[in-house]
Amino acid sequence: MGSLGEDVSNGVRRIVDFRSDTVTKPTAAMRAAMANAEVDDDILGVDPTMSELQKQVAKIMGKEAGLFVPSGTMGNLIAVLVHCEVRGSEVILGDESHITAYEQGGISTLGGVHPRTVPNNADGTMDLKKLEAAIRYELDDHFPVTRLICLENTQARCGGRCISAEYTDQVGELAKSYGLQLHIDGARIFNASTALGVAPERLVRAADSVSVCLSKGLATPVGTVLVGSNEFITKARRLRKALGGGMRQVGILAAAGLVALRDMVGRLKEDHANARLMAEGLNAVKGLHVDMTIVETNIVYVDVTADSALTPKEIVEAWKEYGVLAMTWGRTK
Amino acid sequence: MGSLGEDVSNGVRRIVDFRSDTVTKPTAAMRAAMANAEVDDDILGVDPTMSELQKQVAKIMGKEAGLFVPSGTMGNLIAVLVHCEVRGSEVILGDESHITAYEQGGISTLGGVHPRTVPNNADGTMDLKKLEAAIRYELDDHFPVTRLICLENTQARCGGRCISAEYTDQVGELAKSYGLQLHIDGARIFNASTALGVAPERLVRAADSVSVCLSKGLATPVGTVLVGSNEFITKARRLRKALGGGMRQVGILAAAGLVALRDMVGRLKEDHANARLMAEGLNAVKGLHVDMTIVETNIVYVDVTADSALTPKEIVEAWKEYGVLAMTWGRTK
Amino acid sequence: MGSLGEDVSNGVRRIVDFRSDTVTKPTAAMRAAMANAEVDDDILGVDPTMSELQKQVAKIMGKEAGLFVPSGTMGNLIAVLVHCEVRGSEVILGDESHITAYEQGGISTLGGVHPRTVPNNADGTMDLKKLEAAIRYELDDHFPVTRLICLENTQARCGGRCISAEYTDQVGELAKSYGLQLHIDGARIFNASTALGVAPERLVRAADSVSVCLSKGLATPVGTVLVGSNEFITKARRLRKALGGGMRQVGILAAAGLVALRDMVGRLKEDHANARLMAEGLNAVKGLHVDMTIVETNIVYVDVTADSALTPKEIVEAWKEYGVLAMTWGRTK
Amino acid sequence: MGSLGEDVSNGVRRIVDFRSDTVTKPTAAMRAAMANAEVDDDILGVDPTMSELQKQVAKIMGKEAGLFVPSGTMGNLIAVLVHCEVRGSEVILGDESHITAYEQGGISTLGGVHPRTVPNNADGTMDLKKLEAAIRYELDDHFPVTRLICLENTQARCGGRCISAEYTDQVGELAKSYGLQLHIDGARIFNASTALGVAPERLVRAADSVSVCLSKGLATPVGTVLVGSNEFITKARRLRKALGGGMRQVGILAAAGLVALRDMVGRLKEDHANARLMAEGLNAVKGLHVDMTIVETNIVYVDVTADSALTPKEIVEAWKEYGVLAMTWGRTK
Repeated sequence: MGSLGEDVSNGVRRIVDFRSDTVTKPTAAMRAAMANAEVDDDILGVDPTMSELQKQVAKIMGKEAGLFVPSGTMGNLIAVLVHCEVRGSEVILGDESHITAYEQGGISTLGGVHPRTVPNNADGTMDLKKLEAAIRYELDDHFPVTRLICLENTQARCGGRCISAEYTDQVGELAKSYGLQLHIDGARIFNASTALGVAPERLVRAADSVSVCLSKGLATPVGTVLVGSNEFITKARRLRKALGGGMRQVGILAAAGLVALRDMVGRLKEDHANARLMAEGLNAVKGLHVDMTIVETNIVYVDVTADSALTPKEIVEAWKEYGVLAMTWGRTK
Repeated sequence: MGSLGEDVSNGVRRIVDFRSDTVTKPTAAMRAAMANAEVDDDILGVDPTMSELQKQVAKIMGKEAGLFVPSGTMGNLIAVLVHCEVRGSEVILGDESHITAYEQGGISTLGGVHPRTVPNNADGTMDLKKLEAAIRYELDDHFPVTRLICLENTQARCGGRCISAEYTDQVGELAKSYGLQLHIDGARIFNASTALGVAPERLVRAADSVSVCLSKGLATPVGTVLVGSNEFITKARRLRKALGGGMRQVGILAAAGLVALRDMVGRLKEDHANARLMAEGLNAVKGLHVDMTIVETNIVYVDVTADSALTPKEIVEAWKEYGVLAMTWGRTK
Repeated sequence: MGSLGEDVSNGVRRIVDFRSDTVTKPTAAMRAAMANAEVDDDILGVDPTMSELQKQVAKIMGKEAGLFVPSGTMGNLIAVLVHCEVRGSEVILGDESHITAYEQGGISTLGGVHPRTVPNNADGTMDLKKLEAAIRYELDDHFPVTRLICLENTQARCGGRCISAEYTDQVGELAKSYGLQLHIDGARIFNASTALGVAPERLVRAADSVSVCLSKGLATPVGTVLVGSNEFITKARRLRKALGGGMRQVGILAAAGLVALRDMVGRLKEDHANARLMAEGLNAVKGLHVDMTIVETNIVYVDVTADSALTPKEIVEAWKEYGVLAMTWGRTK
Repeated sequence: MGSLGEDVSNGVRRIVDFRSDTVTKPTAAMRAAMANAEVDDDILGVDPTMSELQKQVAKIMGKEAGLFVPSGTMGNLIAVLVHCEVRGSEVILGDESHITAYEQGGISTLGGVHPRTVPNNADGTMDLKKLEAAIRYELDDHFPVTRLICLENTQARCGGRCISAEYTDQVGELAKSYGLQLHIDGARIFNASTALGVAPERLVRAADSVSVCLSKGLATPVGTVLVGSNEFITKARRLRKALGGGMRQVGILAAAGLVALRDMVGRLKEDHANARLMAEGLNAVKGLHVDMTIVETNIVYVDVTADSALTPKEIVEAWKEYGVLAMTWGRTK
C-alpha cells in the first residue's frame, strides 16, 4: 500500500512509508482545525462539529444519517450486529473480505453472528450464483437465517480492486429479493469513486449501510463514519454506546474529518498515479513482479519471483536502509 | 439415505423408508431393555445403566470417558465450545460438514466461536495444505485464534464417504504441531469402521474428542455419546448442564444404547450391501444417475438427469404411492 | 425435598430418599407405556406419542402449543432466549429463582441476556413496586431493554411456596403495561395447583410461556414441556434444535409423561401431606427447627439449631445409616 | 454533578453547567498540545505521545502497563471480558455500580458474562460477608464460576463516595483467597485520591486492573486509560482491536491527556470545595435538601422535598433561564 498524507522529514533523511495507508498523518490544516474545533458532549448528541461531519458524510453517500466510530472495525461490527440483531442470524461475506480476514472474528466472538463465506474472484466480486446459493432462506430448523450480505469497495486483499455500481446494484437486487440487507465496507470507497469516476453515492446506492473511513488515504488521525437510514443509525448509536465507542468532546476528531472531505478526497487521484508509477517501476526490476491489471487504486502488491536473489523479508530490510518502508504480506512473513 | 432399524407394517401395505437413517425405530430388544432398565439420577452421576453405556462407548473409541447427550448436534456443540472455551476462538471446518450445514450455526450464535471453512474434497477430506493455511497461529491482533479442527466420518454430504485412519492421523499431527485440538463428528463412525474394516478406536486415535451417534443406523430412539479425556468430559458435563441437556433417570435411553452396541453394530454391513444394491438398481433406471464411486456406506444420492420425464419432487411423490419414502435434497426442493 | 415415585427395596433394607423430588423413579405403568409407545421422528414433527403429550400439557395450561425439552433448565433457557431474541435484552428475575441460582447463568453465558434481579420475599413473590422500578423502559442508550419478567411457581428456594393466581395476574398486568413478556418456571406448577386448589390454567393465565416439569413429583424419568402461543413454540422448536435438544424417536419418553398426567398429578396431595407430617415430626426434635408456615407443598427445609449436638453433615450421615437420605443445603455443606 | 473544566462565555450570558463532569471541555493548553502532538500508528504500537500517556498513567497507578480506550465503558467492558475470558464466568458487582446501571449490560450482551449483584451500602461499599456469600466457588455444575469482583471509586450513584484503601485491601484479600481478580472502575479515582489525601496507587494497590478516566473532572475531550499487568494489557489490547477501539494517530488525544495529568489533577480540590459550597447553599433553600454527609467529592444530589412548590423538572427549567444547567435524576424525570 502506499498513500501518504504528509511527508515526514526526519533530520537529514526523508522516510517514505509505503507500508499501509493507515500510517498517514494529519495535515497542518487538520491540526489547526482540531485546535480550534467547537466541541460539546457528543454522547448527549450536541457536539456541533461532529454533527456537521456526520451530516456531510451521510449526504455524500446519499443516506439519511451518519455516526462517527473510532475505527473501521467498529463500523463494520456495528453494521453487522444491527442488521443481524436477532439471535440466530447469518451474514454472507467474501472469503477475502476485511471482516473475514482482519477483524478478529468479532462478529461471531462478540456478536454471535454466523458467517458464511463465498469466494472472492480476482476482481473483488463474488459470483452472483454462488451468493444466491449461499442464502439460507428456507424455514428449516437446521439452518441459521441469512439476514445480510457484505461487500467491500475497494476490495483490499484482491489488490484494491474497484467494485462497479452495476455489480453492487445486482447484489442489492438479490438481497432485496430475499429480504436481506446489504452493507458495504467502504474503507476506501473514495478510492473506488476516484478510480471509477463515479460519485460515491452512486456506488453505494443499493446499500443499506456503508462504513466510510477517514483515516487512510484521507489522512485524518482517527475515525470512520457509518451511514444509513435514520432507524439504522439510531440502533447503531445505541450499539456504539454498548461497545464503548461513544466519546464525549469528539468534535476535535470531527474537525480533522471535515478538512479531509474538503482537501483530501480530490487528491486521491495523485495517490493512484503514484501507485501506478511505482508499480511499473517495480515490475521492471528483475526478481520482482507486479500484476499491473490489478493496480487500480492505491494498493500495490509485489510478488518476489523465484529468480530473486533476496527473500521478501530481505528486500524489505534492504529498502529500509534507504528510508523506504514496506511490509511483507502473506505466509512468507 | 437408507438404513432401517425396524420395518413398519401399516395395515396391508408395507412402508419402506429411505428418507434418512434418523427415522430408524427401536427394536423389540431395545424396548424390552428400556422397560426393565435400572435407573437413578444421572445429574448426580449415579444412573448405573447410563454409566455403563458411557463406559462402553468410551472403551470402544479408546478414550478415557464418555457423556450421553440428547443429540449429535449437542455433542458437536459441546465439543466445539469446550475446545474453544476462551473468547476469541476459531474452529476450522469442512464447508460441507454437518456442523457448517445443519446445526443452525449454533457454535457462533450460542457459543461465539468463529468458524473458518475449508472446501471438502469429493472424498470428504480437506486438502492438508489448505487446512494448514487456514490456521491463524500468529500473535496478530487482527486474527482470532485457531484452537480446533473438526473432521466428520463418514462425511455425509459428500455421500457418506469414509475418512481413513491415515488421513485422520495426518490431520491430528498437523493439529498437534500448532497446538490445536481435533474433534471428529462420528455420527456414522460405525459405518466408516464397517466399510473400512478398521476398528473405530483406530479411526479416531488422533482425535481429542468424538461424538458417536446411537440413533441412526444403530436404531436407538435417542442419543449420542461424546467421548474424550477425563478432563474434557468433566467440562463437557458442565456445559451439558448449562445447555439443558442433563437428564435425570436417563438410564431408560442408555438401555437401548447398550442393546445397539451389542446387536446393531454388526449388522451395518447389511445396510451397506442393501444401499449398494439399491444404488445399482437406480443407476440402471433411465433419467436417474448414481455416482457409484461414492456409495461406500448407507447413503445413496441419486441425480435426476436432464432426460428425466419427472422432476425430483414428482419422483418422490410417485414412489410414495408405492410405499417407498425418499427425500429431495439440495436447491431442487 | 421429599416426593417418592417408587420405593426401592434393596435387599432387606428399604431406602427412603428425601434428597430431592428429582430422584423419583418411573412407575411400573410408565415402564410399560415406554416399552409399547408408538414412535416416529420428532425432529420431523411426526412422533404421535410426543404430539399427544405436547397437546395435553398445552391444554391443561390453557396455551396453544407445547414443546418437549430434555430438562427444566432447557425449558427456561429457551423461553428466556425466545422472549429476548433481540441482542441487548434484559430479563427481570427473583434473586432466589432457579434460573438465577441453579442454571449456570446460561441465559447470559450462552444467550447474552442481561439479568436484573429483584429480591424474592419470604413467600416467594417479588414486591410489585420493586419489579416496576427495575424495568428499563426509557429510550436511554445507557440501558439494556427489559423484555421479560420471570416468576417461579412453586418458588423452590423460598421453601416451595405457592404463588397465587391473583399475584401472577398483577405481574402480568405490569408486564403488559410495559410491553414485556411473562414467563413462569412451572417446574412444580402442579404442586402449586394442588396446594392452592386452583387449576394450573388459572395459575398461569397471565403468562406468555410456562415450563412444566414431568420428572419431579410426577416421576417420569426425563422431561419438561414448554407451552405458549403457536408463534412462541415455533421459535422455541427452532432454538431447541440449535441447543441440541431435538430428539428423534422420543415418544418413548412422552409415553411416560402421558402416564404421569393420568396417574401422578392426583397423588401430589399425598406428597404434601407426607411432607407436612415429616416437617412436624422433625420440628419436635431437639436441635432441629422447621418453619411450619412455609411448608406448603413437598419441600421441607430443616434448620439445625445452635443447641444441636450434631452438625448438618453429621445428621445427614447418621440418617444414612438408617436408610434415610437427605441433603445439606446452603453454605454449611 | 458539577465539575467544570472550562467556562463557556456565550455572548453576554455566561452558562454554568452542572449537569455532569462529562460535559467538561478541553483547556487552551490541551488544544495547543493536540495541535502539536507527535503521532504515529498506535495500532502498530508506535505512537510516541500515546505510549508516553499510557506509561505515565500506569506509573501513577502503580501498574505495569496502560492502554488507552475511547471511553470508560470500553475500559470496564474490556477489563471484565479479559478477567472472564473463559465461557461460563460470573462477575460480582455492586447493584448501584456504573457497570450495572449505565453500560447497557454489555458484559452480558456482548461478552456473555453473568453478573451477580450485591447491594451497595450508602457509603458505596458492599458488605464483605455478602460479597463472600455471593462467590460461587464450589465445583457444582449448577453454578457459573465467579472469576471477578468489581469496585467503583468514587462510587457515583451513591453520591461520589470515596472507597478507602483499607476497604479495597480487604476486598482484594477476599478475592485472592478465592482465586478471583479485582477490577476497579476508577472513572473518578483522582477525585477519591484528592478527597482522601491518599495516592491513587495506594487506593488501587489490591486491584488487578483499573480504568482511569481522563475526560471527566480532568477535562480532556476523550479517553480512559486501562492499567494492569503486562499480560493483562496484552489481552486487553487484543480485545480493544476486536471491539473496534483501536485507533491510528491517536496521539492527538493522548496529548490532551498528558496536559490533564500535569495541570488538572491538582485542581480537583477546587471542584470539591465548590461542590460543597454549592451543596450547602442549596441545602439552605426551602423545598430542597442535600444530605451533606455524602458530599465528599464533585457530585451533589439535591432532593426536592414535599414542601417544594416546584417539581424537579420545573426547577431545572427555571435554573436554565438563569444560565444554570442541571439534570433531573431517578424516576422523577
